[in-house]
Amino acid sequence: MAGIRKRVALLGSTGSIGRQTLQIARMFPERIDIVALAAGRNAELLNQQVEAFHPKIASLAAEGPSLEEIASSPEVDLVVIATSGATGLLPTLSAIRSGKSVALANKEVLVMAGAIVMAEALRGGVDIKPVDSEHSAIWQCMQGEQSEISQIILTASGGAFRDLPAEELANVTAAEALRHPTWSMGPKVTIDSANLMNKGMEVIEARWLFDVPFDRIKVMVHPGSIIHSMVEFTDGSLKAQLGVPDMRLPIQYALSHPDRWTNSEIPKIDFSQVGSLKLSPIDFERYPCLRLAYETGAAGGTLPAVLSVADEVAVDYFLNGRIGFFDIPRLLEDTLGRHQPKEDPSIDDIFEADAWARETAIRWCEQ
Amino acid sequence: MAGIRKRVALLGSTGSIGRQTLQIARMFPERIDIVALAAGRNAELLNQQVEAFHPKIASLAAEGPSLEEIASSPEVDLVVIATSGATGLLPTLSAIRSGKSVALANKEVLVMAGAIVMAEALRGGVDIKPVDSEHSAIWQCMQGEQSEISQIILTASGGAFRDLPAEELANVTAAEALRHPTWSMGPKVTIDSANLMNKGMEVIEARWLFDVPFDRIKVMVHPGSIIHSMVEFTDGSLKAQLGVPDMRLPIQYALSHPDRWTNSEIPKIDFSQVGSLKLSPIDFERYPCLRLAYETGAAGGTLPAVLSVADEVAVDYFLNGRIGFFDIPRLLEDTLGRHQPKEDPSIDDIFEADAWARETAIRWCEQ
Repeated sequence: MAGIRKRVALLGSTGSIGRQTLQIARMFPERIDIVALAAGRNAELLNQQVEAFHPKIASLAAEGPSLEEIASSPEVDLVVIATSGATGLLPTLSAIRSGKSVALANKEVLVMAGAIVMAEALRGGVDIKPVDSEHSAIWQCMQGEQSEISQIILTASGGAFRDLPAEELANVTAAEALRHPTWSMGPKVTIDSANLMNKGMEVIEARWLFDVPFDRIKVMVHPGSIIHSMVEFTDGSLKAQLGVPDMRLPIQYALSHPDRWTNSEIPKIDFSQVGSLKLSPIDFERYPCLRLAYETGAAGGTLPAVLSVADEVAVDYFLNGRIGFFDIPRLLEDTLGRHQPKEDPSIDDIFEADAWARETAIRWCEQ
Repeated sequence: MAGIRKRVALLGSTGSIGRQTLQIARMFPERIDIVALAAGRNAELLNQQVEAFHPKIASLAAEGPSLEEIASSPEVDLVVIATSGATGLLPTLSAIRSGKSVALANKEVLVMAGAIVMAEALRGGVDIKPVDSEHSAIWQCMQGEQSEISQIILTASGGAFRDLPAEELANVTAAEALRHPTWSMGPKVTIDSANLMNKGMEVIEARWLFDVPFDRIKVMVHPGSIIHSMVEFTDGSLKAQLGVPDMRLPIQYALSHPDRWTNSEIPKIDFSQVGSLKLSPIDFERYPCLRLAYETGAAGGTLPAVLSVADEVAVDYFLNGRIGFFDIPRLLEDTLGRHQPKEDPSIDDIFEADAWARETAIRWCEQ
């Protein structure tokens, strides 16, 4: 592979994952060629990135080529989907249909349309490379394995409020929820971490990425965020992937896979500091969003899309101080309850459910 | 591979690893055909095993074909070296030279002659499948990986006396040393676990099996024996293999590799019981045998063979109550100090060192 640079399109270049992807690209100029950058709103940062990386294509929201066009461009080998919300879905499908590798950081894509996306990827022989630290961990543990998985154990830090008494949760503020104990991430995913909605979405993603039924996907609380997830095989053996909580590690692995690139800027685990790795079962009573995600994921159809979109709205209103922390699961449950789910939905069905859920959830918040 | 049974020769069938290997063979009769059994002394058990497995070849110590003959028999695909001490060395070389796969449980083989054994295996394109839980763990973590290893972390339970104050160690008895906190193993390896000589030998084995220099092999105390070992890669990612402390798991993996076979008799880890996984640095002051193994391994030549043989003698005398627990490292250090080491030794040089060390160590014990 020496001398061959991967031509990378980065969708969502100004967000947290996008910026860290460019940090990796900067460290490995002989391996990565950023040929396209696309951002939503942050024109100033996009301009700086364009000056630094000289991509052939740059796009800001409505200006420039669409994300689907970029994702299918003949100049591109690998598309990094670092957008958020429903934005990533169509570009992901576009990349797959054009035979590009996809590094997927946008959780909602598989939550909303896992069945469609994975079927198309399988048909096209396209690799979906997970960027989430948990799914990257599982994927790393599965390298070279050809046998069935008996269990996936996703670890959860427990989020900003893991040590707060349950009765104090109702009154937490957005500012408090944004103080994640171990990971530095964007605001939406940080709020989703505080109520484990994030973990619920990861459960649904894992179901699709690794083709494992929900009853074989477990969540355990692991406050240190050192064990990023584990896989148990049918012979009783279990593999875990560990690392410091630094998103650059799974981002780099999605870019380097199946290779690994020596990176001394990512700190190594110092076990003399770690001491002990705690793992404890999850309290579903405390985390209703996680229960909702399991139920919705298992029910399938358009329900997970509704969950995902209603959560986008809920977190937005919570971040703006318009609804409380406990309103988030209430809003989700309410919206899901009113939805007329469709089985085996098409992409159009999913977008229809998306529009309906967005409107319904906004109305809930405004009342 | 359906329908193709691996034809297995089991050398050392009546020892702890041998008996557990036959447990696995009994569970998977459609995959494993025991074609040869060889034991050292236990004629009664060997006879029972012969009745149960109907091997084409059976051998008891001096009676029947030699271990080298069995290991090179055309009837055999895989040779399990479950002998102990220096016994396994020549049959291992014989198996490699005949192009057989080797499942290696006899630690002394690589400690005594790692350079020779691995060079022959490389030349013949023969797989050495480790059976030790630690090396199996590392090997499992390396499946599908093609990149350099930055560090191997071998875990150590700390043995029977890990919680005993240092000043009480001098007077411990063989019976106390045989009470291993987590693993059920043969007497030699259990004593070696109590003073971490066992771990020292594993460090030397790891150096050869995975071609990693000694300064990148670390030992950490992990009292639970759940994490069997870890591998750190140059990108900062770390993989660990976990499992209940049950030797049938690594034995089965050496037989099933690269597959895994569903085995519900091997208990799964119950994380609600495990709670937390403790890891702490090793105290070299407390474990002089481990320091000796590192030093001897790095010095190379005939020294590791001398260490290994002197330890065989020392443990034998300790088990018979003839020398004390603290005499073991003294005897080792003394014997190593008197040895005239030979660089790049031949097998004959190694056996010469073996004979010299055995005589010298016995004389030490008898005085």
